Amino acid sequence: MNAAGIVVEYNPFHNGHLYHVNETRRQSNADVIIAVMSGSFLQRGEPALVDKWTRTKMALHNGVDIVVELPYAFSTQKAEIFASGAIQILHHLKCQSFCFGSETGRIEPFTISADRLNEKKQALDEWVHLFMKKGSSYPVSQTLAREKIFSDDPLPLDLSKPNNILGFHYLTANNALPNPMKPMTILRKGPGYHDQKASGHIASATAIRKLLFDHKEVDDFLPDSVRSFLMEQQDIGLLHSWDLYWPLLRYRLLSIHPNDLETIYEIEEGIGPRIMNAALKSGSFQSFMEQVKTKRYTWTRLQRMMTHVLTNTTKQEMQTALKNLSFVRLLGMNGNGRSYIRLIKNEITVPLISRTAAGTPFLELDIKASRVYASAPSAPAHYTERLLNHEFSAPPILF
Amino acid sequence: MNAAGIVVEYNPFHNGHLYHVNETRRQSNADVIIAVMSGSFLQRGEPALVDKWTRTKMALHNGVDIVVELPYAFSTQKAEIFASGAIQILHHLKCQSFCFGSETGRIEPFTISADRLNEKKQALDEWVHLFMKKGSSYPVSQTLAREKIFSDDPLPLDLSKPNNILGFHYLTANNALPNPMKPMTILRKGPGYHDQKASGHIASATAIRKLLFDHKEVDDFLPDSVRSFLMEQQDIGLLHSWDLYWPLLRYRLLSIHPNDLETIYEIEEGIGPRIMNAALKSGSFQSFMEQVKTKRYTWTRLQRMMTHVLTNTTKQEMQTALKNLSFVRLLGMNGNGRSYIRLIKNEITVPLISRTAAGTPFLELDIKASRVYASAPSAPAHYTERLLNHEFSAPPILF
Repeated sequence: MNAAGIVVEYNPFHNGHLYHVNETRRQSNADVIIAVMSGSFLQRGEPALVDKWTRTKMALHNGVDIVVELPYAFSTQKAEIFASGAIQILHHLKCQSFCFGSETGRIEPFTISADRLNEKKQALDEWVHLFMKKGSSYPVSQTLAREKIFSDDPLPLDLSKPNNILGFHYLTANNALPNPMKPMTILRKGPGYHDQKASGHIASATAIRKLLFDHKEVDDFLPDSVRSFLMEQQDIGLLHSWDLYWPLLRYRLLSIHPNDLETIYEIEEGIGPRIMNAALKSGSFQSFMEQVKTKRYTWTRLQRMMTHVLTNTTKQEMQTALKNLSFVRLLGMNGNGRSYIRLIKNEITVPLISRTAAGTPFLELDIKASRVYASAPSAPAHYTERLLNHEFSAPPILF
Repeated sequence: MNAAGIVVEYNPFHNGHLYHVNETRRQSNADVIIAVMSGSFLQRGEPALVDKWTRTKMALHNGVDIVVELPYAFSTQKAEIFASGAIQILHHLKCQSFCFGSETGRIEPFTISADRLNEKKQALDEWVHLFMKKGSSYPVSQTLAREKIFSDDPLPLDLSKPNNILGFHYLTANNALPNPMKPMTILRKGPGYHDQKASGHIASATAIRKLLFDHKEVDDFLPDSVRSFLMEQQDIGLLHSWDLYWPLLRYRLLSIHPNDLETIYEIEEGIGPRIMNAALKSGSFQSFMEQVKTKRYTWTRLQRMMTHVLTNTTKQEMQTALKNLSFVRLLGMNGNGRSYIRLIKNEITVPLISRTAAGTPFLELDIKASRVYASAPSAPAHYTERLLNHEFSAPPILF
């Protein structure tokens, strides 16, 4: 059996994702589609709209054969680390290819750019460092550094587009493997990643979340099965967002010792007092973020910092976790996926975790993240208990 | 001018407290009544029903001339430390006498018992240590130790009664002063401290809180002025109790590192896993406490532990704070109180703090406790902001 991998968040699953699954199957001719999916907290430093089990069901209902978790240590990171974790997991699972959506839609610009950037890596890093020192954010510094180095002969890839950036890092991580997978890309349909407007039957996940929070119609943009999962969740009144966790984050910031705040991953020296002061003066997550934001710290970067404060993830924990991506956690699979897993079981070199318990090695951070995710103060008790129990006692979802 | 001191929590102020204030004035013939009052968290390890500013107003409306704060480091402790902090503060403020309610109502049994217990202090401590080692709680071990030592000639004071215990410790702390104040006691009217039933126009604060939470009539047991303060608070829907803080405590316990839990004041080695496990399995504070409770750990002691977990108060912070009771924080006063303060201002040897700011020396723990107190997740934003602002920018309440 032949497997193709995809890297997803499904926040929530929509028609664009369905197109991605179908195109991956068509282009790769794979027997099995494996999705590596962020768990409770996502790449932009946000809690997932709905829990990972529900998002796994969405995937399995729409053509994905196996869903595995991208661990917290990788899912809440900048593109480079996020991509490296996802690619390693797909490789652990013996995928022969992987396919990502991009603003470009052709793979050559990625392969060419990855090679050329790789050649100039050292010079590039030096320029990035310099621009950051001058006060620019990391993404802006990268753009400026690339402009400096490739001014005479520009790269064939527009690296200001978020999916192109991710794709570029998938390729770089893949090239670093002993036997790389075959990279493929499809053109993203419909509006861009950050766009809040919808067009046709495809809208970005950002746009769909906005419609959901505004209690507006989203049916056009979702497969039928996803609609019913989201309606159930809306009935409980629990679409997760930072607003839901703001009372916990604020409490934490109002009671943490300044020295302890500095042990949290991504918290740099000097920003602590600014954060604690803003927490004191802000009645909402939005106004808190507006007070903390500077040119140097992008919104996304600050959200990631706050995710780590919320989950109490220290620099030391993160260092350990980033070194140890030597396991795969199964979230769900269908019959086809089960056959594939049976087939590769003896070939794969890392533990395949299908049921957790307190103290399961590797999973400390993910278990903590799930516990915090389940602790939204406004959640009904039975909902919190269900999430907490599922994390520990449930086997992967079988479809 | 001549001042008499009282030690109070006013949780809430009721007719029994009014009687205490009036009797203190009558018996002491003092010009000024000074109340040292617990702030946000109380001796039994609970959040105060209403904030300290509102409770200060209750006191000033009912004959108290000056209200000062018993700092967090003392207000959330067993009787011995609680009493020692309160007596030191009254002494700083040049009180000539102090008066407490007791189940006995005469001062001789206290003076005699304090002297006799003082003589046998070492033997007593050894017995207490022994009984605790065998698994008895601290209060039970003390009772057993006293029975051992004074079996032939029992003390003239029933030290199983909570107000007698406190009174006894007031006397002990007072005796340790270079120039002790004159101790006085009045007979507590009406039902006992822990009683949940009311009789006549006096009911215990515990009984009144229960009636309030059950939405039952309490008017008979409260002075008119207190009634309106409580009604305002009930209108916001915010009578503070552990239930209000359970989502924060649970979140904290589900995300704290086991090693960090052991740095918290009163957390003894070995109890950490028991607490964290109970947090995972409990949907309410009540069920959490029932799961953690053992013969060794009384309900009150566990509540104090959980108060320190909630406020993130470490052993080290507490040690420092307990050593430094060299300030007095004014919460409110009337005209008479102001005259007294003007009069003694130059005589008193410690700073009199009437307005705080971040970084005010001595007040770190109290400021943190107030911030946490204000962070109840269900509180309306304007209520939280008002409490947070008051802690920092408001002068003492003038009446």
